[in-house]
Amino acid sequence: MYDKNKETDMGTIIKRTTDPERAQSRRTQVLDAAAICFARSGFHGASMAEISKQAGMSAGHIYNYFDNKDAIIMAFVAIRVEEVTHKIANVSQQDDPLAFMVGQLDDIVDEHLDGAYWGLSLEIFAEAARNPVIAAALQAADADARVKLHALLARGRAQRGLASDDATIAARTEAIITMFNGLPLRGLHHPALDRAGMVDALGVAMKALLMS
Amino acid sequence: MYDKNKETDMGTIIKRTTDPERAQSRRTQVLDAAAICFARSGFHGASMAEISKQAGMSAGHIYNYFDNKDAIIMAFVAIRVEEVTHKIANVSQQDDPLAFMVGQLDDIVDEHLDGAYWGLSLEIFAEAARNPVIAAALQAADADARVKLHALLARGRAQRGLASDDATIAARTEAIITMFNGLPLRGLHHPALDRAGMVDALGVAMKALLMS
Repeated sequence: MYDKNKETDMGTIIKRTTDPERAQSRRTQVLDAAAICFARSGFHGASMAEISKQAGMSAGHIYNYFDNKDAIIMAFVAIRVEEVTHKIANVSQQDDPLAFMVGQLDDIVDEHLDGAYWGLSLEIFAEAARNPVIAAALQAADADARVKLHALLARGRAQRGLASDDATIAARTEAIITMFNGLPLRGLHHPALDRAGMVDALGVAMKALLMS
Repeated sequence: MYDKNKETDMGTIIKRTTDPERAQSRRTQVLDAAAICFARSGFHGASMAEISKQAGMSAGHIYNYFDNKDAIIMAFVAIRVEEVTHKIANVSQQDDPLAFMVGQLDDIVDEHLDGAYWGLSLEIFAEAARNPVIAAALQAADADARVKLHALLARGRAQRGLASDDATIAARTEAIITMFNGLPLRGLHHPALDRAGMVDALGVAMKALLMS
């Protein structure tokens, strides 16, 4: 008789490192557990043993997916790069990318003020402040986002007949990212802030930066 | 013959905890050492023993000034509150406080992009994300700064005949603090950023938030 469980077990043993879908799901399982452990114990306080326990994996098993905690942080950075790339690509496809960006502020504010998001962000940032490898990964991710945002602003501003020289665009891009970078810190400092008011006020600042 | 050194030594022994000037200088010595240790080892990695060694004090002596590392972080927060209070008081005394604030951006950008400043900031923020006592201190400091900035904006905007209802002012205040909060993260993500361009672009956003 066909034994599905047995087949799965054998398949697991044989394909542990080669089945990409399964490996991806295991990696996600580790990252979810790591996010919880970092929030609870901090990046330095959380051990690979604590993370594997939280993930419900053996301590040895976790090393099939991540060599160490630095590799886990690097995976979080890579996921954010993917998300940002995806978002900017979506804005780029719009007829009026600048107005569309302002219209997205609602979602951006919600996302950045989410406690799980900013808690992990702050952990990554603090670690990067003393770990040059992680700082370099953040800086590369940031450079990539800047290049993409720069192109988007250049096109959107030229479309509207606004100054679109490199220096202006670079500076406006910096200021916009500064606001996005600041949002997670508002979540920490003022958890009860009025989100609708924040969206309105950031809209005033964004419109000035993008469309004037 | 009058022996100044001897008198000082005896004075030290007797007044160790009562001479406010000496105590203040010792506290500063510990805080300077702690800033170095936190940057090197992180808040969790740095021990009171490491901090006392860096400060050139005995391990026991340091406890005359700070009960634990939390108390040291709280002292950093208190110092920042004092600095912010002082700055806002200075702006308040100006005839045109809003234009003066925009004119201060140059200094604000320089200060926030200083590596020593943002490195310590990120360490405090990350610790606050998992330590409710420190989070509460940051939130109280932030609430205090908001109240003062709010009053300043209300007066400045009323003076210019601009909307100065509480909701508008609160939202504009939030957005301005968001930009300031984001600045240290730009230092981390883009160390080579063009500061003059940043001052210009933030000026565009600030003017829109303050004067429109």
